[in-house]
Amino acid sequence: MAATPYKQLEQEWQRLHAFGGALSLLRWDAAVMMPRGSADVRGEQLAAIETEQHALLTSPRVSRLLDRAQAGAASLDDWQRANLREMLRQRDHAIATPVSLISRLARATSVAEVRWAEARERQDFAVFAPHLAEVLQLVRDKAALLGQALNLSPYDALMDGFAPGVRSAELDPVFRALSRRLPGLIREAIERQRDAQALPIAGKFTPGRQRALIVELMKAFGFPFERGRLDESDHPFTEGVAGDIRVTTKLDQGDPFKGLLAAMHETGHALYDLGVPREWRAQPVGKERGMALEESQSLFIEMIVCRSRPFLKYLRPLLEKHFGVSGPEWEPDNLYRLLTQVRRGAIRVDADELTYPMHIVLRYGIEKDLLEGRLAVGELPEAWNRGMQDRLEVQPANAAEGCLQDVHWAHGAFGYFPSYAIGAVIAAQLFETLRAATPDLDERIASGQLGAVTGWLAQHVHAEGGRLAPQQLVQQVTGKGLSAAIALRYLEARYLEEAR
Amino acid sequence: MAATPYKQLEQEWQRLHAFGGALSLLRWDAAVMMPRGSADVRGEQLAAIETEQHALLTSPRVSRLLDRAQAGAASLDDWQRANLREMLRQRDHAIATPVSLISRLARATSVAEVRWAEARERQDFAVFAPHLAEVLQLVRDKAALLGQALNLSPYDALMDGFAPGVRSAELDPVFRALSRRLPGLIREAIERQRDAQALPIAGKFTPGRQRALIVELMKAFGFPFERGRLDESDHPFTEGVAGDIRVTTKLDQGDPFKGLLAAMHETGHALYDLGVPREWRAQPVGKERGMALEESQSLFIEMIVCRSRPFLKYLRPLLEKHFGVSGPEWEPDNLYRLLTQVRRGAIRVDADELTYPMHIVLRYGIEKDLLEGRLAVGELPEAWNRGMQDRLEVQPANAAEGCLQDVHWAHGAFGYFPSYAIGAVIAAQLFETLRAATPDLDERIASGQLGAVTGWLAQHVHAEGGRLAPQQLVQQVTGKGLSAAIALRYLEARYLEEAR
Repeated sequence: MAATPYKQLEQEWQRLHAFGGALSLLRWDAAVMMPRGSADVRGEQLAAIETEQHALLTSPRVSRLLDRAQAGAASLDDWQRANLREMLRQRDHAIATPVSLISRLARATSVAEVRWAEARERQDFAVFAPHLAEVLQLVRDKAALLGQALNLSPYDALMDGFAPGVRSAELDPVFRALSRRLPGLIREAIERQRDAQALPIAGKFTPGRQRALIVELMKAFGFPFERGRLDESDHPFTEGVAGDIRVTTKLDQGDPFKGLLAAMHETGHALYDLGVPREWRAQPVGKERGMALEESQSLFIEMIVCRSRPFLKYLRPLLEKHFGVSGPEWEPDNLYRLLTQVRRGAIRVDADELTYPMHIVLRYGIEKDLLEGRLAVGELPEAWNRGMQDRLEVQPANAAEGCLQDVHWAHGAFGYFPSYAIGAVIAAQLFETLRAATPDLDERIASGQLGAVTGWLAQHVHAEGGRLAPQQLVQQVTGKGLSAAIALRYLEARYLEEAR
Repeated sequence: MAATPYKQLEQEWQRLHAFGGALSLLRWDAAVMMPRGSADVRGEQLAAIETEQHALLTSPRVSRLLDRAQAGAASLDDWQRANLREMLRQRDHAIATPVSLISRLARATSVAEVRWAEARERQDFAVFAPHLAEVLQLVRDKAALLGQALNLSPYDALMDGFAPGVRSAELDPVFRALSRRLPGLIREAIERQRDAQALPIAGKFTPGRQRALIVELMKAFGFPFERGRLDESDHPFTEGVAGDIRVTTKLDQGDPFKGLLAAMHETGHALYDLGVPREWRAQPVGKERGMALEESQSLFIEMIVCRSRPFLKYLRPLLEKHFGVSGPEWEPDNLYRLLTQVRRGAIRVDADELTYPMHIVLRYGIEKDLLEGRLAVGELPEAWNRGMQDRLEVQPANAAEGCLQDVHWAHGAFGYFPSYAIGAVIAAQLFETLRAATPDLDERIASGQLGAVTGWLAQHVHAEGGRLAPQQLVQQVTGKGLSAAIALRYLEARYLEEAR
């Protein structure tokens, strides 16, 4: 008997999954291993496979099979129906963008990423500007076509690729609520912290020792090193597929927490990617549900767990073991003060929980302005610096600490940044529910039983794969929809109430 | 005006080139970076891209274009005609093997490589045996189909994929001539060397320092690190494309020459791959002309140049600089004795020039017996050990030093080994011609002007790409066809005559 149309589609998506895994590895290599001069060659390789992937996704055969599978959807179970829905979503996104545009984007972003790294090293925006302009023009073309096909504004069409189903119109009130309360909250928190200054830590922490500690922590969180790697790169990231996950971090010899927390952030992503249902791994429904949920997982581990008093109690003897450090500045209470310190800084990835959303609001505004033509690429550094001043009262020392700090735009990833803030909101909501369900959570974390966290996330979030929309998932797990109020409640508890 | 059929073919092969580069990177990663548990995932990725490559190469469209381009071949120039001939050759090879077989081979060899590494570590052939048996069965199917399509014996059909145009019938007399003279030559050389024993070297040579020296030498030979990398792997190899070449070596902390010479060997490959004509890089005629010529380049650098007195004169101060070593055992004359020492050993990659061809003759016989069903996989270790005894009077200490020492069969690369010996013969022939054309060659090498070697090879060999058959190229450069006699003359001069 011939396979059903639905089963034939599963086979086609298995091929797409293999192409996707190869692309992910090629991108990982480009950022971690590839010689500087080879960006042109890599660009051609990425373009060739992406073109193939696109051709398969938009082929008449796949569209015919999708039609026939939809007609027979009554015989499919829940997961299969959700899988079919995701297949349709991917096809609809893909069919809006012509092959030639995808190829040009792949080439342009591959070169732009290398130039971005050079520009950042030289603190010279001009090195990056023409490449960003080229990427932006191509992204604009793509956004216009996508918007037309999906009946969305160009910006919303791009955002839909990262946070499926989320629109500017829903986002704006959440961002407004955060923007309304956060400046005051930041001021109050800084005020309070003035009375209980953290003792600074000092020392030289070699990459080898930092790596050993990070590996031990990743293992404690359940990261499977027989199926993954930890490396270093300019900008921490996670690439790969559930069977081969590549996490990177960026180490600072003077501050062991930078690399550690970046690695924990990426471990949050990796655990999500690894935790999807095994039997659905090669199918769209068996993948993470977009970047907003991804960020909820990484911020949950990095911000909520790793910067908590119980976790720092667990961490103290490990710091002594790996770095030979002790003394009052290494006690959990002091580390907690240090790692929850609110500071108006220029760098997003170093930002604390309170100022972080302001960094996102800035980027959200700028990338919309760039995309919608209200801002020229040449004006970006000035607009950036003005925005930082207005929102965080901060002046970046140079372009490397200003508009060159993130790789996202070099990648052509416009519409991605909002996911970080949505993720923070979801993380806070999930945490409130986990706390309520686990009365001895603090004790478990303090004794290194991190499975109390990762097991719960695996069961309630990871195991759902891409079956539910982000809002549905939050509703199912917490009993409530997206809520800036809960996020603010969590932040107020952490930054304004007495230490428990 | 529409592109001509030939120009359309060039575009198709540009895509094939991009797929090939991606595959090469995925293979490099599997051997150097990939987590142990991820072989299954990588197998799927390789299979998906290889399947695509094969589908493109064997598509009716490409065959139609090939027919039309052949009809219009009169208007093509020399290089284009050679390119078209290579396209046809690739298509003929590809069309003989069905997609399903290629996919199964890719999967099986990906797993077999990991199991081979495990088996070698545990010195346990049984860990590898079932995977080798599976690979062998698939290779047999492939060889039978190829042989039918190309009107060759199964073994010759496989060998044609590595050394285009070379047949067992041509190889046998060369191997017979070598086998006739070498045992006597080995005995005489060992006898002579007994009177002038080399002083042993000792010390601990850290990987970091070995790496620094190797990098300096690679640069001196012209290896462009902005377009390539040096890493470590179980078995040294070269992967990548002209724009991004990845060389690996295997370091031994007790012997700096092992890793150094392996790296120089691979640098010989890399320079060939990098030296093909720039404008033809993405086309079949712009690639190396098979493995026999590849080996002629690697052996030329490793064996003929790097183990010569002039090169060791150049190397001495570098050894002192990087390792802080000096004394009589580090003088060029002693190093020469050390590095041209003839020894009956178990390991091919450690073998000297004189015993090396005997290692190949052994493998040639065994792989023909395996392929043609005269030897079962279970009997391999015994047959290997018996062969080593008969040909080199050596008994491997264990399977890791016996039939598990090479990765080739795990890769399914039957018919590959003969290329090493053909390469050695060609290298000796090229060297005779270079010496005659460059009277001050020794002085140039001794003063570190290695361009005298690499420039000549680049001009006479690399720049020809795949335009000429190996025999034609040797004829064009040296004025003679393949000649075991010249190779033996070179070996006799080096091992039996007085030092110059």
